[in-house]
Amino acid sequence: MIRVAIIGASGYTGLESIEILLRHPEAQVSYLTALPEECGHVADIFGSLRGRLDMHVEVLDMGKLAGKADVVLCCLPHKVSMSYVPRLLDTGLKVIDFSADYRLKDVIVYENFYQEHTDKENLTHAAFGLPELFRKDIKNARLVANPGCYPTGATLAIAPLLKNGLIETSGIIVNSVTGVSGGGKNPSVIFHYPNMNENFLPYAIGSHRHMPEMEQIASAVAQTKVELLFQPHVGPFNRGILSTVYCDPKKDLSQDELNEIYNTFYHSEPFVQVLDGPPAVKNVAKSNYCHVYPTTAKGKIICFSAIDNLIKGASGQAIQNMNIIFDLDETLGLK
Amino acid sequence: MIRVAIIGASGYTGLESIEILLRHPEAQVSYLTALPEECGHVADIFGSLRGRLDMHVEVLDMGKLAGKADVVLCCLPHKVSMSYVPRLLDTGLKVIDFSADYRLKDVIVYENFYQEHTDKENLTHAAFGLPELFRKDIKNARLVANPGCYPTGATLAIAPLLKNGLIETSGIIVNSVTGVSGGGKNPSVIFHYPNMNENFLPYAIGSHRHMPEMEQIASAVAQTKVELLFQPHVGPFNRGILSTVYCDPKKDLSQDELNEIYNTFYHSEPFVQVLDGPPAVKNVAKSNYCHVYPTTAKGKIICFSAIDNLIKGASGQAIQNMNIIFDLDETLGLK
Amino acid sequence: MIRVAIIGASGYTGLESIEILLRHPEAQVSYLTALPEECGHVADIFGSLRGRLDMHVEVLDMGKLAGKADVVLCCLPHKVSMSYVPRLLDTGLKVIDFSADYRLKDVIVYENFYQEHTDKENLTHAAFGLPELFRKDIKNARLVANPGCYPTGATLAIAPLLKNGLIETSGIIVNSVTGVSGGGKNPSVIFHYPNMNENFLPYAIGSHRHMPEMEQIASAVAQTKVELLFQPHVGPFNRGILSTVYCDPKKDLSQDELNEIYNTFYHSEPFVQVLDGPPAVKNVAKSNYCHVYPTTAKGKIICFSAIDNLIKGASGQAIQNMNIIFDLDETLGLK
Amino acid sequence: MIRVAIIGASGYTGLESIEILLRHPEAQVSYLTALPEECGHVADIFGSLRGRLDMHVEVLDMGKLAGKADVVLCCLPHKVSMSYVPRLLDTGLKVIDFSADYRLKDVIVYENFYQEHTDKENLTHAAFGLPELFRKDIKNARLVANPGCYPTGATLAIAPLLKNGLIETSGIIVNSVTGVSGGGKNPSVIFHYPNMNENFLPYAIGSHRHMPEMEQIASAVAQTKVELLFQPHVGPFNRGILSTVYCDPKKDLSQDELNEIYNTFYHSEPFVQVLDGPPAVKNVAKSNYCHVYPTTAKGKIICFSAIDNLIKGASGQAIQNMNIIFDLDETLGLK
Repeated sequence: MIRVAIIGASGYTGLESIEILLRHPEAQVSYLTALPEECGHVADIFGSLRGRLDMHVEVLDMGKLAGKADVVLCCLPHKVSMSYVPRLLDTGLKVIDFSADYRLKDVIVYENFYQEHTDKENLTHAAFGLPELFRKDIKNARLVANPGCYPTGATLAIAPLLKNGLIETSGIIVNSVTGVSGGGKNPSVIFHYPNMNENFLPYAIGSHRHMPEMEQIASAVAQTKVELLFQPHVGPFNRGILSTVYCDPKKDLSQDELNEIYNTFYHSEPFVQVLDGPPAVKNVAKSNYCHVYPTTAKGKIICFSAIDNLIKGASGQAIQNMNIIFDLDETLGLK
Repeated sequence: MIRVAIIGASGYTGLESIEILLRHPEAQVSYLTALPEECGHVADIFGSLRGRLDMHVEVLDMGKLAGKADVVLCCLPHKVSMSYVPRLLDTGLKVIDFSADYRLKDVIVYENFYQEHTDKENLTHAAFGLPELFRKDIKNARLVANPGCYPTGATLAIAPLLKNGLIETSGIIVNSVTGVSGGGKNPSVIFHYPNMNENFLPYAIGSHRHMPEMEQIASAVAQTKVELLFQPHVGPFNRGILSTVYCDPKKDLSQDELNEIYNTFYHSEPFVQVLDGPPAVKNVAKSNYCHVYPTTAKGKIICFSAIDNLIKGASGQAIQNMNIIFDLDETLGLK
Repeated sequence: MIRVAIIGASGYTGLESIEILLRHPEAQVSYLTALPEECGHVADIFGSLRGRLDMHVEVLDMGKLAGKADVVLCCLPHKVSMSYVPRLLDTGLKVIDFSADYRLKDVIVYENFYQEHTDKENLTHAAFGLPELFRKDIKNARLVANPGCYPTGATLAIAPLLKNGLIETSGIIVNSVTGVSGGGKNPSVIFHYPNMNENFLPYAIGSHRHMPEMEQIASAVAQTKVELLFQPHVGPFNRGILSTVYCDPKKDLSQDELNEIYNTFYHSEPFVQVLDGPPAVKNVAKSNYCHVYPTTAKGKIICFSAIDNLIKGASGQAIQNMNIIFDLDETLGLK
Repeated sequence: MIRVAIIGASGYTGLESIEILLRHPEAQVSYLTALPEECGHVADIFGSLRGRLDMHVEVLDMGKLAGKADVVLCCLPHKVSMSYVPRLLDTGLKVIDFSADYRLKDVIVYENFYQEHTDKENLTHAAFGLPELFRKDIKNARLVANPGCYPTGATLAIAPLLKNGLIETSGIIVNSVTGVSGGGKNPSVIFHYPNMNENFLPYAIGSHRHMPEMEQIASAVAQTKVELLFQPHVGPFNRGILSTVYCDPKKDLSQDELNEIYNTFYHSEPFVQVLDGPPAVKNVAKSNYCHVYPTTAKGKIICFSAIDNLIKGASGQAIQNMNIIFDLDETLGLK
């Protein structure tokens, strides 16, 4: 039984990770930590765990960690994470980090979108945890940078085209919509129920931090520099991301050709389903699946994808990475 | 043209009052005030007013108030309100107060549910602003205590029965559900969108501050002491209150008799509609109407009512009171 | 591995049953049937099953059934169900029926609220499938009548009081609110999104079919005739039922006494959690748990309960019953 | 007082038109018609009109129409509309038609996206009812084709750029999201509450009927052929459309230049507000306003617009057109 510590367990990704591990036949939650003001019995923090997990969320004791766990899910926010990860790695445990701190290989890009990077050493060897595209790197990694929710959905939508060199690598537009849980657990004016209900709006125009992450993944897949414009929106639902990606084909592709390209590319992937019609967020909610649908319209290729932002976009993908690292069936706890 | 000052204009009841006054043919917003950190152009505070009202919300200048307005809507919270109302009245203006500070005639009850009362003098002469039941008092009042949202809906649901002495005056159960705007504009953990969406819950069990207010109104109507149990719930919608009131008839009443009693009682009321089937919150949303439906089941009488908590439950009723005070058609701005 | 046939698999309870069985370590879906126009691959009927279950929903072939399954979940509607159940039982399989057809032991009551009963013979021996109250009957039953969603939540809320003879057995008021999935999968004017969103309303006033079912359960628990008034409402959320039950104590009970009574009564129940504050629908959504909270207010006892209407109120409870019948750990697939 | 007949009054646009006319100081509803099965008192059809309008919806009597009205709002669906409009015009009344039947000037395009056109004669002289772009045509028209909801929002978002020749006229992408009321009043599987709630999905991929309408408007404004790709989505809210339009500038434009271009273009428009940040659907809900915001990102221009699909996208715009035709202040009933 793999023992899993969750650092920063009091947020939404902590809860989702716990929920998945409760269903996992070969792994279990062994240690939960949070800031002092967010500690307590898990059932008091997450009412839905009452009767299902009898454990306390505690303040992290770095000295006890190694004896309590085999792997760490680090659910801390950006910047905070890189102040913990070096010490987590020093315990000898494998670390799967949910923050952006180890995702962007180009430190300058990171520092441009976030802040000064204080752990460049570990950045070098961190694997990018998107199994469908970088499974081999993950397998032997000590540190996995779990991808952002938007980049997961958007790049899975177009990876087969990029890999096969079938689309122009500039002018790509990623138009995405997320549910509100993507904004985290802290109350805010914009996500106050009476404001967000019956509302729909764009945000972070031309400047979302996930844009360079998408470009990095896309460029790695295409083996050439890819430039794209990413525009996120938020809508009145809890979970899910729908991405609509517009791109220019290098040559005309029929629907049959697109289907074949995608079905071939994702043939052995347990969590990517190629649909024959547009996806809907509801069909992937609470699951680790990504539904994709490529099609053509007026000379463009439009690729749709839908994921659950907290599962395939965060905690589910982390457990998928954990399964890979520990040589387990990749789908344990996730199907 | 009646000039209306709104004190505490930056919250939901401020916005609703402004919206109504923009449609009012004989009254207009003349002065808007708020705390310093909530001041600014109304369009920056309420995006829906952009292009519709070119006015700034300012810090209250008590010295200028009298010259700027004929009446004050005081939308301050409990406790704060009674620290302003004496000075507002000193300007000679009529005041319609949205807080609970002047609603409960029994100071001991007030102090039990709220805090020490610091303006008992004005409490004495304040009129209770529920026009359907206390119209005469309102007409000549200098200070009107605008009712709470729950008491408005619940007491209109059963007033005809109480007035005619047809139900037992104890054992009445008021089970109500409010939309989330009833909780105000400040972000909170419970009303954070991902928590409140797909949720439904009771709160303030057996102890809601509107319970004594309901008992006071009901007792005044029944001309005898009425005791009731009020249980509020909150559901995932923005606006409206549905109250389901269970009571015991003194003698059996047929549906026809109930209809006649209610239709007679509310015959000349412009804003109360007696339905022949159960009400729905949607049908009163954004309106000053109260829909009521009395019926019988298993020996009980069940009375339903639906109102918009921010209109008939707050700002609409305030303007209705203002119209009464200024001898205008009571429905101006409200139909 | 227990093989489970689901008759009438194309509705919401069919999907939930499948979802649970996909997580069940000792049972699996073996046969899915529906009306001809609702047949096809499960992934075309339920998009969320794509990639997770490769099976077709077929027209029922009664001759093949016995060879394909060990137990039948009969998810047919009222009236239709009792035209199938005799034949299902003739195959020798155990049957868990989701309809109301075998729930009401008093045929006259059934025929008053539904229609003529055409299978009185099997009605006699059917067990009422609420494990917390009737576990022994279920264990040896060939036919289990799975309870209604409202009766499950409401009676679990007050069973400890009834069992211990602590409340009056008349005058009980059950005020409940359901999410919209309780109304089933067929589109209707009232549940059309633009009508139901931002709405809240009561329905079936004094006449809901679950009222006699509640009275039957409550009377069986109290060992004396119990009379209650049940009033359902529907709110804008997908899943869950919150019941608020008002009753009169025979003698005053303190909060501590209530806690002890409930904790004792539900001590060994895996799916009932006694809370120390009011429940919220969100905390039981997608789970087989029932959260209960008894308290007192103004001389009344108020008992709250929350369940997921499709899980503890239908499919989860059916699998719980199946586990009992097959002598499995009662919680398999459900935790 | 202008007397307004509404043909096809039982749908959402009928209700919205009535609501606006109830606030209109110089026009009033005089005649309401619908199919026989949808006739009855307005309060029975629209519960929110109870007590506010005492009128019956009747079967259309073409012979009485002329004596009862000065103008007709024809809220019939596509195809049905063009079978009525010739007769409506024969009465001598002005007609504002909500369907698509008179919007597309190119009959071949119409017949490609809809069906055979049976009233080409009136098509010729119909004015396109988007006042901000075609006010002069509307003024003297006998027949106004009220625009589609999506084309209204999308073309107002980019009209200033097209008019000034500042963007490429091909490769424009219009990515839009509508609330569910855009799908009309008839129940359907997709818009059944439990399916649409917590969902988000694209539809009509590359083939929505509003695409040629957008191209026609855009081409008229640009005075050259414009080609665009329109992709609609639907989200879980009742009202509003948010359009995100991506286009390629012919030369770089700064934010200041964009602001000046838009503010100049819409300077005297009462219902278009140029924002200095992204719009939100909530801020235009229930209003006739269009909020627009142009900006730049990664070499593209992104233009956002938000409207209420039933007001500026339908009934409000129709009344705006009516006001223009009758030489009234264009904003009557709409501010």
